[in-house]
Amino acid sequence: MQQTESSERFRRKAIQPEEAQQAIVNSVRALGAETVGLYEAWDRHLAEALIAPHPFPPFRRSGMDGYAVRTADLLQAAPGSPVELTVLECLPGGKAPKHSLGPGQASRIMTGGMVPEGADAVVMLEMVAAEERDDLPCVRIGKAVAPGVNISEIGSEIREGERLLPAGRRIGAGESAVLAACGCARVAVTRRPRVAILSTGSELLEVDEPLAPAKIRNSNAPMLAALVRELGAEPILLGKVPDDAEAAGRLVRGALSDCDLLLTSGGVSVGDFDVMVDILAQPDAKLLFNKIAMRPGSPTSAALFGEKLVLALSGNPGACFVGFHLFAVPALHRMLGMDGPTHLEFTACLGEDFPKVNAYRRYIRASTAIRDGQVWVTPTGDDKSSLMTTIVGADCLIEIPPLKEGLKRGHPVKAWNIRR
Amino acid sequence: MQQTESSERFRRKAIQPEEAQQAIVNSVRALGAETVGLYEAWDRHLAEALIAPHPFPPFRRSGMDGYAVRTADLLQAAPGSPVELTVLECLPGGKAPKHSLGPGQASRIMTGGMVPEGADAVVMLEMVAAEERDDLPCVRIGKAVAPGVNISEIGSEIREGERLLPAGRRIGAGESAVLAACGCARVAVTRRPRVAILSTGSELLEVDEPLAPAKIRNSNAPMLAALVRELGAEPILLGKVPDDAEAAGRLVRGALSDCDLLLTSGGVSVGDFDVMVDILAQPDAKLLFNKIAMRPGSPTSAALFGEKLVLALSGNPGACFVGFHLFAVPALHRMLGMDGPTHLEFTACLGEDFPKVNAYRRYIRASTAIRDGQVWVTPTGDDKSSLMTTIVGADCLIEIPPLKEGLKRGHPVKAWNIRR
Repeated sequence: MQQTESSERFRRKAIQPEEAQQAIVNSVRALGAETVGLYEAWDRHLAEALIAPHPFPPFRRSGMDGYAVRTADLLQAAPGSPVELTVLECLPGGKAPKHSLGPGQASRIMTGGMVPEGADAVVMLEMVAAEERDDLPCVRIGKAVAPGVNISEIGSEIREGERLLPAGRRIGAGESAVLAACGCARVAVTRRPRVAILSTGSELLEVDEPLAPAKIRNSNAPMLAALVRELGAEPILLGKVPDDAEAAGRLVRGALSDCDLLLTSGGVSVGDFDVMVDILAQPDAKLLFNKIAMRPGSPTSAALFGEKLVLALSGNPGACFVGFHLFAVPALHRMLGMDGPTHLEFTACLGEDFPKVNAYRRYIRASTAIRDGQVWVTPTGDDKSSLMTTIVGADCLIEIPPLKEGLKRGHPVKAWNIRR
Repeated sequence: MQQTESSERFRRKAIQPEEAQQAIVNSVRALGAETVGLYEAWDRHLAEALIAPHPFPPFRRSGMDGYAVRTADLLQAAPGSPVELTVLECLPGGKAPKHSLGPGQASRIMTGGMVPEGADAVVMLEMVAAEERDDLPCVRIGKAVAPGVNISEIGSEIREGERLLPAGRRIGAGESAVLAACGCARVAVTRRPRVAILSTGSELLEVDEPLAPAKIRNSNAPMLAALVRELGAEPILLGKVPDDAEAAGRLVRGALSDCDLLLTSGGVSVGDFDVMVDILAQPDAKLLFNKIAMRPGSPTSAALFGEKLVLALSGNPGACFVGFHLFAVPALHRMLGMDGPTHLEFTACLGEDFPKVNAYRRYIRASTAIRDGQVWVTPTGDDKSSLMTTIVGADCLIEIPPLKEGLKRGHPVKAWNIRR
């Protein structure tokens, strides 16, 4: 009897990680936009591409403190026979010129100042002797200069209509500067995904509870909340449920209306008390998958309840962490309107021997180091799915293909950057 | 007369970037601690090291769904002649065993369950035939197993008293998990540095103002605010002051009591309207430096007003960005109690020719790519200090030493990771 029951639970069809990722991505869509102030837009994602509304610089700008000149006036200038120019005005940053330059004329100008009409170069202050003659200020310049020197032409940095930032782009320092230069005091950003987090398992204590026999504290919920926040989403903490399918099922259904994605940890294995297995098998759930040909986290499961995705991760901290990166991150990227690959993939040298024989693809928590221009990735510790200490310091996942024998240190391996 | 005035401004003694960094770091100290809930501790920095309060796992834990057994009972087990064991109880996660195992006895156990006394291995569910005999449940096992199999011993992941996380460590996903496992529902973190940001320059418009001749919008303040937030500090926006030394001086002094660090942009050059030069030269300021032998940002300056550090960055966006990473980041790291190098330094191949001759060390905004295990760093665009678009996508700074001739593509260069 138990035999039979267990077999049912074992009768799962494993799919490849890529198929699971595709099923996830197909189940979610980009969230709507909201408008926030530029200073609140940091770490959010652009809801639409930024197109330059005007050229930048918007005027001919001096790159130096010095004098705006006509280079034609200086063709004969030499250290022994400087050319003398009459100074018309002084142009600090922000002051529009009153005068165009005619022959024999110059204007003093500061870095960032607007170059007057007629001028075609700015001579550095350090190269100029200034004096007054007949009460008119004048300068003597002892060197010819090339046209265009120290002037940033209109649109030389940004052309009007240029696509400066793509939709979905995360707003960091450079993006903030460009948005500001374009006058975007308010920015349309994608709504933060609301990600509900539920832990299952009768062994779980709250973090502030004292230890008790057979019990451990719930470490997956804080870990997932941190991961969710790193992605620019908002965690909604549902706490934990005991291994009781009915109670857990009620909580799951109740939470769905208030979130964009529900993550659970635990309860997906083949044990008798694995509640998520039962919840995802119920008639109102459209199961996407319940087994993946990978380690760790092969029982990672997903289902749709109406339009809402429930991603059921393993309760083992290491497997939960890997599952988040492989399956929750693609969903969140899609919701945030991000384009392109979810993780930067790269090839690196394996930092230590990997002796395990491997019937499945394996994703190993590892850290990246660069030595003499070469990239090395080294497992952060023993690759047990239960270990949480190996999550600390992991900045990539090494993908190890199915292997008949282990890999030696230095072997090239594929890795995925998991730092945001 | 103007000659003389300018010469005064030019008479600055350049120091090396490392000296400037050291002067900065010596001028600040770690901020005090505050206690926050674990879920609010994300992205904060630990005020003290985390020492494991107990071993983890805190009990002998099953790594599998299966049966806890005595391996001595199974020495003779073989597929044709299975050994039959009586099942005493079922041990889901969280349930403390009622019985120790004697000879011929087993207990059903789930992943994460507490292994009973007497048991020294867990046999996978898939390897076991379960049945009932004389109303007592029993199992038949057709294979010997080695002691210790599928059991995580007490303390096998974390030893009691082990230093798990150093003081100053930023709290991400792995750190959150480890803190939770150790029962840290509240966490002592360093106070967020309060970083005031002031922009100088009469050319500056607010971001929401329409363009006007000779004017540009203030892009440095949003950029610096983003950088400050990326570092885990709190920006305080002071807005902008025109090029008026008295007004700017009042604002600087007024802001100091409410911040841990004041960043300014602009006004540090040799022009007549560079207010920060005057402010930092006043008698109550202890000037740390006002010229650095580097490009961009050579006029970057710093002074102490009492115990408060004022770091005056260049107004050119590119130079402002580089100056933040070189000089503000070390100050913030110190304030946050972080140890070790401020930026990860690495060697990489230069991604394109660098034709410039270079009298000073130069820091170039660049992006990192890994190709076939080799790291390449490529400038994000023309290396003009005024360009802000080159900040977008920059994840490292290439350090180019003084050069008599340019560098070819592929040449090894030193780079600093500027992603947090």
